[in-house]
Amino acid sequence: MNKHPRNITLTEDQIPKQWYNLRADMPKQHDPFLHPQTKQVLKKEELYPVFCEALAAQELDETTRYIDIPEPVHNFYKIFRPSPVIRAYELERALDTPAKIYYKFEGNNTSGSHKLNSACAQAYYAKAQGLVGLTTETGAGQWGTALAMACAYYGIDLTVFMVKVSSQQKPARKAIMEIYGAKVIPSPSEETAVGRAILKEHPDTGGSLGCAISEAVEKAVTSQGYRYALGSVLNQVLLHQSIIGLEAKKQLELVDAYPDIVIGCAGGGSNLGGLSSAFMQDKLTGKANPYFIAVEPASCPSLTRGKYAYDFCDTGAVTPLAKMYTLGSQFIPSPNHAGGLRYHGMSPIISRLYYDGFLDEARGVEQTKVFESATLFAKNETILPAPESAHAVHVAVQEALKCKESGEAKTILFGLSGTGYFDLTAYTQFNNGTMTDYIPTDEDLAKGFACLPDVSNSAK
Amino acid sequence: MNKHPRNITLTEDQIPKQWYNLRADMPKQHDPFLHPQTKQVLKKEELYPVFCEALAAQELDETTRYIDIPEPVHNFYKIFRPSPVIRAYELERALDTPAKIYYKFEGNNTSGSHKLNSACAQAYYAKAQGLVGLTTETGAGQWGTALAMACAYYGIDLTVFMVKVSSQQKPARKAIMEIYGAKVIPSPSEETAVGRAILKEHPDTGGSLGCAISEAVEKAVTSQGYRYALGSVLNQVLLHQSIIGLEAKKQLELVDAYPDIVIGCAGGGSNLGGLSSAFMQDKLTGKANPYFIAVEPASCPSLTRGKYAYDFCDTGAVTPLAKMYTLGSQFIPSPNHAGGLRYHGMSPIISRLYYDGFLDEARGVEQTKVFESATLFAKNETILPAPESAHAVHVAVQEALKCKESGEAKTILFGLSGTGYFDLTAYTQFNNGTMTDYIPTDEDLAKGFACLPDVSNSAK
Repeated sequence: MNKHPRNITLTEDQIPKQWYNLRADMPKQHDPFLHPQTKQVLKKEELYPVFCEALAAQELDETTRYIDIPEPVHNFYKIFRPSPVIRAYELERALDTPAKIYYKFEGNNTSGSHKLNSACAQAYYAKAQGLVGLTTETGAGQWGTALAMACAYYGIDLTVFMVKVSSQQKPARKAIMEIYGAKVIPSPSEETAVGRAILKEHPDTGGSLGCAISEAVEKAVTSQGYRYALGSVLNQVLLHQSIIGLEAKKQLELVDAYPDIVIGCAGGGSNLGGLSSAFMQDKLTGKANPYFIAVEPASCPSLTRGKYAYDFCDTGAVTPLAKMYTLGSQFIPSPNHAGGLRYHGMSPIISRLYYDGFLDEARGVEQTKVFESATLFAKNETILPAPESAHAVHVAVQEALKCKESGEAKTILFGLSGTGYFDLTAYTQFNNGTMTDYIPTDEDLAKGFACLPDVSNSAK
Repeated sequence: MNKHPRNITLTEDQIPKQWYNLRADMPKQHDPFLHPQTKQVLKKEELYPVFCEALAAQELDETTRYIDIPEPVHNFYKIFRPSPVIRAYELERALDTPAKIYYKFEGNNTSGSHKLNSACAQAYYAKAQGLVGLTTETGAGQWGTALAMACAYYGIDLTVFMVKVSSQQKPARKAIMEIYGAKVIPSPSEETAVGRAILKEHPDTGGSLGCAISEAVEKAVTSQGYRYALGSVLNQVLLHQSIIGLEAKKQLELVDAYPDIVIGCAGGGSNLGGLSSAFMQDKLTGKANPYFIAVEPASCPSLTRGKYAYDFCDTGAVTPLAKMYTLGSQFIPSPNHAGGLRYHGMSPIISRLYYDGFLDEARGVEQTKVFESATLFAKNETILPAPESAHAVHVAVQEALKCKESGEAKTILFGLSGTGYFDLTAYTQFNNGTMTDYIPTDEDLAKGFACLPDVSNSAK
């Protein structure tokens, strides 16, 4: 018999009542957002055409440590939260490691990932402001599904610009968004000026996340009663996702555990930022010193090989400029890259924490190794991880095997941010040996860096 | 604020330690199984070539009220159980009903359904008997996935005969079984004598569940170290699934609730039998009198329009004969029938309970209405139901609307046996208005009844 339960649960009255705003404890803030045309520091009012007012305020709030979760959002959280922290006894046994492995599992909802944590907040604020609806983009489809669920729940409209190649490869993802009432438009499309321009230049393009963002933003600012929603990268998203780490810390306390290592996959940073939040607070305030590892695909290495620079958040250059680790807004991962984690940039908060050394390490990993660990995990822990989450699984396995070598019984916490039920094409490729790896050359990356905007004469 | 939580949880040490064998409390047993050739009452030993010995014993056990759950199975249960009972506050609000609606949700595992409850038991007993592996069949794919997960966990082989048309329409289901290490063979196949015979006569057939069962049984009895596993219909399966009802009863007690109405969808009976178990015990022993409703598709109406007669459990006539409600082993639902619940027969236990009036009602419903309720449920409760489970959702909605009319605040419990993540083709058809209904005519059914075996000179 195990001393502690596998499944460390909380009751619904233990769901945090406030989000934690990491910036209030950061010694240095990320450089301010810049207006895409003027390149001057962005004012809150300039965000209002794009975001709901409450969300624009959250985006720029550097000082309020805790922000109340509105009651209707808290009620929505009760539908799918608290999420479990699971002690990976079966994986530990399979690895024969002295390490204690825990994972926070965010996949037990129909969107299949943690994205719902921010989706329901963003849909709620839109509803509260009396808006007609939201626009957004989606790549792999988890964010689009989450926001479709949230908009259905609050009774507002949603238009999703879905990367064209994804909408073709993942008809099930498109279908599920439509079932929840969303309008799904393959991007680039004829619906927007930026889409038409891209199609004119590249009629056969499969689209990209950066391009879909441009279309969604344009559609929001040109449609009466609409605003734009984004599932990662933004400060507001990390704020909402802080609930993951707040819960996880409570749960580990219940079994007298505290992580030596915290591991999260990082695409735009929503999952890593959310899981890290409460533990990063301990680090920033000197209470504890966990070791943080961001895991990213070797094929889209924004932290490990990107530049810390101002860049656009989209391809069409309609979004504000953010100072972040970036591969350049024109960077698109090679076609053999499976799953998400394909964004060119990284959350400005995560970027700053990495730049300042609080986020200890970024590790780029190749996908064939990632799927190997994912399959091992699935066979022993039974859950099939999302390809994104599998990056964290893989590094947890690496660290657990190091413990086996050294004999150390470290406590490892990783984020199992979602399930891979809609990603079976990638798993099948791995399973039948046709999955390949790709590591961009320095020349490949140089092309992306060449497109970084010049802010030398205008910023700050 | 709601007085009681939405999510009624148990801790893992509250997972039942024993299964409940409903037969020990039934005043009348179902008529005995008959040997398929001799039509004489089947002896336990005659089941050994097909089932593990422990499972053969469970299949025929009419007297042991509680059966210990082996510790390795209990450990597996801890991976995905206890499952929640959820108070459907959001659905109640959407329906504006005074009814209190609860659902037991079994979909929070990678197989996506309750099938894992019996899969892990059957795989464990095979492992404990030192077998090499198991064979089985799958239609919609939930059972095959569950058994693949269980066999991967216990480290034994699995061969799945998958209804050919399903393997073509649901490549993701095939893929996920293969990821967990199963060998998946579209049925009918050249691998078995019965498959070859069917292919010779019907070279273009898309297959059927009854035919896939025949192939899996033949493969098991002709392969060294293999036995056969089935995901529904059998007494052993209902025994393992009793854990659903045992948990649900405990959970409702926590909020001082007891169901006036218990609703489950019924294909082979595993879900309905499992959910009903502990409440049916109360009815059989006179402690309470909940009203039980079995919901089945109007297109595959074994309880509502079938005959209570001896029949084969498969198409190829290799399985024992069971006394049950049946449409005839040659019955195949029309091609527009979506999802599972397509089996020609019904659990002998469920059949007996229905025949004797303990199962109060069977209700046949049309799929377009079912998907309408499923979509309403998804938009409000956020979970996308499996098409099978959506049958129970629909009748819960019907009963809740009756309460609205009468003003009664009845307590309704239904089984949300699984999720519809792999069934988006059907949802898309509903969503774009191309889904159709089909109710077999009496002439259609007469063809199935004409094939019922003659047991007049041999039984009992």
